[in-house]
Amino acid sequence: MTLVELKIVFLGTSGAIPTYERGLSSIVIARGDEIIIFDAGEGMQIKFLRSKLGINKKMKIFITHIHGDHCLGLLGLLQTLSLMGRTKPIEIFGEPRLQEFILINQKILNFNVNYQITIHTIQKEGLLVEEKDYLVKACLADHSILAFSFILEENRRPGIFNLERAHKSGIPEGQLYSLLQHGFDIEYKGTKISAREFTGPSRAGRKIGISGDTRPSKKLEIFFKGCDVLVFESTFTTQERKKAIERFHSTALEASSLAKIAKVKKLILTHFSSRYTNLKLIETEAKINFENILIAHDLDVINVPYPEKELTK
Amino acid sequence: MTLVELKIVFLGTSGAIPTYERGLSSIVIARGDEIIIFDAGEGMQIKFLRSKLGINKKMKIFITHIHGDHCLGLLGLLQTLSLMGRTKPIEIFGEPRLQEFILINQKILNFNVNYQITIHTIQKEGLLVEEKDYLVKACLADHSILAFSFILEENRRPGIFNLERAHKSGIPEGQLYSLLQHGFDIEYKGTKISAREFTGPSRAGRKIGISGDTRPSKKLEIFFKGCDVLVFESTFTTQERKKAIERFHSTALEASSLAKIAKVKKLILTHFSSRYTNLKLIETEAKINFENILIAHDLDVINVPYPEKELTK
Repeated sequence: MTLVELKIVFLGTSGAIPTYERGLSSIVIARGDEIIIFDAGEGMQIKFLRSKLGINKKMKIFITHIHGDHCLGLLGLLQTLSLMGRTKPIEIFGEPRLQEFILINQKILNFNVNYQITIHTIQKEGLLVEEKDYLVKACLADHSILAFSFILEENRRPGIFNLERAHKSGIPEGQLYSLLQHGFDIEYKGTKISAREFTGPSRAGRKIGISGDTRPSKKLEIFFKGCDVLVFESTFTTQERKKAIERFHSTALEASSLAKIAKVKKLILTHFSSRYTNLKLIETEAKINFENILIAHDLDVINVPYPEKELTK
Repeated sequence: MTLVELKIVFLGTSGAIPTYERGLSSIVIARGDEIIIFDAGEGMQIKFLRSKLGINKKMKIFITHIHGDHCLGLLGLLQTLSLMGRTKPIEIFGEPRLQEFILINQKILNFNVNYQITIHTIQKEGLLVEEKDYLVKACLADHSILAFSFILEENRRPGIFNLERAHKSGIPEGQLYSLLQHGFDIEYKGTKISAREFTGPSRAGRKIGISGDTRPSKKLEIFFKGCDVLVFESTFTTQERKKAIERFHSTALEASSLAKIAKVKKLILTHFSSRYTNLKLIETEAKINFENILIAHDLDVINVPYPEKELTK
């Protein structure tokens, strides 16, 4: 069966103020031939180009909320993609003011792009995108302004194909195998053969969570349940918990507690306050609760394999 | 007499599209305790912080024109300065649409800063700023949209103080020397003493030119006459001259020809098309006309001494 590569690329991992090592928020899920961007902080286009993600691939952009550090890089990205020859349309998703932000600035700055931009206004939580083999859903985050968290969830995949049984059945390899493998019943030598005889139970796809800026919440524990990878903000350590509460952000400990309760498989922390030049404190604190943690750095590429071992032969 | 240090700091030297080495347009003149910024391309705030120019100094920002690559970093800079504790006012200068750009985005993105922002709308060429010891003037550039070039011109300084003659006169060192040195007549032992007796003819201050995006023009040759340092755009080489004309930019050869005609002392080239990974071609071409040329790189700091030898003893 077709395996779709999925990797998470970090283009900006600093919160609010950029540092020389860490740009403002932007995370890419590069899945197969598609680029799915979450947030576009100022300057992310430089690391987008540097990561060689491709300028003319199918592309969707989701903006968690319209604080400057999450959306001010969007206009520059759109312009640069056009200057570099993009022709394919782009779909952008965000709260109603995002549309206003894009359209008014296009008008004032008088900039046009050589491709179609479609802006989808997120009016409420729930399903935003239904593609052939994955969904994107939104959930209200708990931030100082209207803000969303997102998950990208792949459809279930066909079960493991029993190659031995197929060989014994005498069915010739090739297209018929492929059909069975993908769960389609076939007819061979006048006999109907059910795919079920040759394939195990369907298998889960991958589920990736993106928190955006938020306090931890019960709602998000449920939304991110069972994620293979959860990318969660960790602006502060517990020592600054008062600031985290005031500014509607999370501490490293809160992020890892949520990951533990939600039974996610891997937690990646990002959006660190520029006050932390060394992130060892963040990591140590988060690991009190949860072992499988990564600290994101700009330009990090994290491959996300399928949840179970793959049948490749 | 008081010597004022003046340095030019390059925060972004790429044209239109940023590269990993070169950010979008931004040039700072750091003069004494004041920061004067010309253009604020996306991402310039990172290099502004990196250059340790100071977040709470007296500050003016001039925007040559409102193409995205020259102004999209302004909002992020204003926000970061506030988050980092700036309290002093900022004065911003640009064409009328710049005001619209700032005010509308402040409203949509709902961001406030902890200091006063005054936006001066440039309606025509000429004098924009008259400070105690320098002026800033604007001149229409020749670009695809309304665009300005700028000069910063220091007032003339007092002439060289004749220390030997002063000693011989018997006037005691200290405050009286200082007054004479700065051109003030004094009274000593009931006698009026003219400063002219002790100081030579007044000396020129420094004159710095900033082109912004432009074709070369007769008008700019006059405007930049005799600059100690002229920072001029050099988007292309002569091989791409057709593109330079179409897009209202200059080639390296055109920039250096203008510098030669205007009799500037030093030419610094910037705003290079991202197609040039090696700038040797740009430099070689420019040097056909004019020897004293520098190629700007991000984070370069160029000290600009006074035109003549200083009297410091």
